[in-house]
This record gives sequence, structure tokens and C-alpha cells, in this order.
Amino acid sequence: MKTELEQVLPAEIEKRSFEIITEELGEKKLLPGTELIVKRCIHTSADFDYADNLVFSDGVVEKAVQAIRSGASIVTDTQMAKAGINKKKLAEYGGQVYCFMSDEDVAEAAGKNGTTRAAASMDKAAEMYRASAHDPSEEGMRKDSPGLIFAIGNAPTALVRLYELIQEGKLQPELIIAVPVGFVNVVQSKEMILELKDTPSIVARGRKGGSNIAACICNALLYMMK
Amino acid sequence: MKTELEQVLPAEIEKRSFEIITEELGEKKLLPGTELIVKRCIHTSADFDYADNLVFSDGVVEKAVQAIRSGASIVTDTQMAKAGINKKKLAEYGGQVYCFMSDEDVAEAAGKNGTTRAAASMDKAAEMYRASAHDPSEEGMRKDSPGLIFAIGNAPTALVRLYELIQEGKLQPELIIAVPVGFVNVVQSKEMILELKDTPSIVARGRKGGSNIAACICNALLYMMK
Repeated sequence: MKTELEQVLPAEIEKRSFEIITEELGEKKLLPGTELIVKRCIHTSADFDYADNLVFSDGVVEKAVQAIRSGASIVTDTQMAKAGINKKKLAEYGGQVYCFMSDEDVAEAAGKNGTTRAAASMDKAAEMYRASAHDPSEEGMRKDSPGLIFAIGNAPTALVRLYELIQEGKLQPELIIAVPVGFVNVVQSKEMILELKDTPSIVARGRKGGSNIAACICNALLYMMK
Repeated sequence: MKTELEQVLPAEIEKRSFEIITEELGEKKLLPGTELIVKRCIHTSADFDYADNLVFSDGVVEKAVQAIRSGASIVTDTQMAKAGINKKKLAEYGGQVYCFMSDEDVAEAAGKNGTTRAAASMDKAAEMYRASAHDPSEEGMRKDSPGLIFAIGNAPTALVRLYELIQEGKLQPELIIAVPVGFVNVVQSKEMILELKDTPSIVARGRKGGSNIAACICNALLYMMK
């Protein structure tokens, strides 16, 4: 074997990785309280662009942690992100992870409306939200109903539909993790989420992101909880 | 809405994305026959580094396609990659996707041997290979047994163990997709795979890669098949 391996115990690999990331970030200023999220995105991609492109709305980390603690569930737009999110940890607080992308009713609705399955799956999430948040005997939302966190790693069309649902008053997410990746309307859809002043958000500005980034931001939040 | 969206039909989004990638690659020379793999990696990450860091062993695309056609299965080191691989398409040729990372016997073996679960899961794959490839009445491998493709998107320790198993003659993969991401032994483990002259490989040289890249290379190969 010509190659020299660094001797690191299995349990120490992640710690050592974060040390290297911290070293290489050097003097780079990160928004206080968001460091673990930024570093985990770099850890999951080996891409230091995430030190520059992540945008956090005011107090979003505290709000997100509070939402998870209150039992918020996560809706995502890919089975990959669902697979990557630490579902056991989330379940400790009562939440679960939903992905409606493979559901038959979603495929049907998308076909009928000439939209994407990702957009249709946001409509399905909004229906679930209405059903869980409304007490049929009263007007408006029940204040004690656990909310929804959206972790969008693939489809800008999901973000566009979320924006519309929020503008129409049909949905008020606890948090939008807006990190789709790609080339068609990805940049624009993220800017739309940044316009929503009353919706906490974590956005990877620009083209980059992905299911791995969506899952890793969820996990970073979960691992920050004591 | 201040943001201007590009009008693209749902069914056209991927095609338009690949057009943009092709435009931006410009005069960049890609190895003939590998273009769709490189472009899909860029599509899944918005990271043009994949135009430079992917290394293909001689004739690997033809060999990989042939292996899939013969019914090869895929072993991966993350549930995320397993979730992302087009299992329906693979099943058309008889293969399936395995990930042993959450298996109890793997966790036990890793604990006992002081190794990672990723390394222990490669041992489990090698056992499966031996059991399926050997005819107990004969010496050596059965030539008609469908082989294994390894898609490693996370753990360099999986690659190191694969290297050892191959050197010990316990495993001969049809293909290794060596694209773990990270900072500890990632670069080195990929160089080890590049040393294996008789093992077809697709390697993302350097730190970059990930479960998304592992899945996307598998899918690129599947989508190239007619």
C-alpha cells in the first residue's frame, strides 16, 4: 500500500473532520449561533462555499429548535433527504418526517394540474397542516398544534408553491430550509423565500444545495438540542 | 412577487438543466463516453469541480453497463444513496440495492473489531459475494454469477476495507464508485482504489463526493442503458 492513512479512531473521525474545517475556515466570520450548521454543511459536501452562501433569518436557530421541541414534523421533497434525517432523534420530541413524492394522489394531482410532483406534494402538506391545525369547531389555528418544517433539497417548484400557499394564508411553516440545487429557477425560488419576512428560513443562496444539505441542516439542528 | 421565473414545463426542467450545464462547460474536454456521468454529477451538485475531479478507469462505462445488464447488484454505504438509486430501473436487469449500515450484526462486528460500521458492512458484502459466487462443488467463482457494484459515498473506511478484501482475493467487484466526501483519509482512500489495476472504478479525486454523487453515478449508468 503506497498510501499513508491518518490514524483516527472510528469514534473520532467526525470530531477530527470538524477540527480540520474549523482550521481551514481560519478567520472567516460566521453568524454567531449558526457555526455548527455551516460547518456540518461543509462536512457533508467538502464545499467551503457554504461558509458564504447560507442565509439565516433573524433568530431562526432558536425558533427552529423551539419548533422541534414542540413536536414539529419535517416535510421534505426527496426520499434521499428523508433517508438522511435522523428520524429517531426527531421522534424523541414527537415529530416525524414526511415525503409525499412517491404518493399516487400526488402524481395524479401533478398530472391534472400540469405542475410538478414536488409542487403537488406541498399542496398535500398544506392539507395535512389544515387538518391538524384547525379545530373544526373554531375559527383559525389551534395555538398548541405542532407545526411543520419544510426541508427542500431538490425542487425549486416546491419552494414556489410554498411561497404561494403562505401568501394565500393556507400555510405558516415554522421553518423553511430552502436548499434546492440546480439550474432552472433555483436561484429565483430561493430569493422568493427570502422575501417572506414572517417565515423563518435557512437558505443556500445561489445554485448549490441538495438533499444531502437539506438533511444535514435538519440534523445539525437536532444535534444542537440538549 | 418581485422574482422573475423562467417558464419551463415540468417535463422539460431536466433537459433545460443539462443544456445550461453543456453551455457553461463550453470548450471543456470530457472523456468520450463519460459526458452523461460528469454532467449528471454537476446537475446533482451545481458544482463544476466534477468536470475535473472524476477519474474513469479504462473502459469502465462499458464494463459497468455490461455488469448491470448481467444482473449485478449495488452495495452502498448509506441509506441516502440507497434511497436515491433508481431501484426500479436496476430491477429490470435483475439487480437490487443493498445497504448493511443499519444491520445489527454489522454494528456488533464493528464494535468487536474496533472498526467502523462501514468497514464491517464491506465484510458482510464480501460474505454475500462468496456465498453467491462460489459453487461449493467446485474451486473458484462461478463465471455466470452476477457480480457486485460498490457505490461508496460516505465512508473512506469502506474503501480501505474494499482495497484489503480485493488484495486478499476475497472479492472482485464489477465496479467501485469511490466518491466518499470529507476530510479524514478521504483523499487517500480514493488513491488506494486507483491503485487497483484490475478493478473498474469511477473515482472523485480529492475531498468531494457524497451519497448524492454515489446515487447519481449509478443512475447515470442506468439511464445510459437502452
